[in-house]
Amino acid sequence: MLVPMTLHRIIISEILEQQTIDLVEKDGDRKLRIFIGIFEATSIERRVRKAPRPRPLTHDLLVNMVQSLGGELDSILIDSLENRTYFAKIRVRIGGSTVDVDARPSDAIAVAVTCQPTLPIWVEESLIEDSLDEEEDTEGSDDD
Amino acid sequence: MLVPMTLHRIIISEILEQQTIDLVEKDGDRKLRIFIGIFEATSIERRVRKAPRPRPLTHDLLVNMVQSLGGELDSILIDSLENRTYFAKIRVRIGGSTVDVDARPSDAIAVAVTCQPTLPIWVEESLIEDSLDEEEDTEGSDDD
Repeated sequence: MLVPMTLHRIIISEILEQQTIDLVEKDGDRKLRIFIGIFEATSIERRVRKAPRPRPLTHDLLVNMVQSLGGELDSILIDSLENRTYFAKIRVRIGGSTVDVDARPSDAIAVAVTCQPTLPIWVEESLIEDSLDEEEDTEGSDDD
Repeated sequence: MLVPMTLHRIIISEILEQQTIDLVEKDGDRKLRIFIGIFEATSIERRVRKAPRPRPLTHDLLVNMVQSLGGELDSILIDSLENRTYFAKIRVRIGGSTVDVDARPSDAIAVAVTCQPTLPIWVEESLIEDSLDEEEDTEGSDDD
């Protein structure tokens, strides 16, 4: 089952190589923690705080590209975990049908927060439970 | 007039904030030098040396997205210069028509080298001349 979640916080560390993104359940308090690279974390963070972007950056380009080709961004899905790596999809509506494109969760979330309003974020429920277990021993899964 | 060019070299410096990309005329020796950020330079460089990418990175996602939506990447164009900043377009064929999407030259070049074979790179001739002039006083234009 897919559970709607929202971006809860972004933790950017200058010491650690991996940055942290926490998603929280929309109608509850279960979390999903994902570790991502500094470029993706910064890209998400500057969008969330609506920092001015004088030129379209890579995730803006991705959103513009979809729109220019007649597609409409629908939502993102974080739907599987393999070898401690999360996998996501970006869902696009085009010409009456729906296309899911594989992406890293970090790219999918950056695309979600580039859109106004932010795209719905859906997470497979079994991943949320896995994540809670892992958080207890302060580990998590890697997005790279 | 648009002139066909190819990627000549990428100079990555750990000291400077800006990285350098040199394009060279396909049928000549005129050059165009563009300064870009480290993320974009690394993204281009790892594609050129065909470094393994275990997961689709942002520019791979962009190429996959275009293909998933039924588009076909055609070429990239670097076609204007304003306030020392170059502007580019990514040209896509879809449903019998052609769409040009605005992009930074660094994103456009990263998309070009992600495709197999590399997409044709077209540069407006007046920019090449400008660039040669500027190179003499060791300055150049910024992509950011």
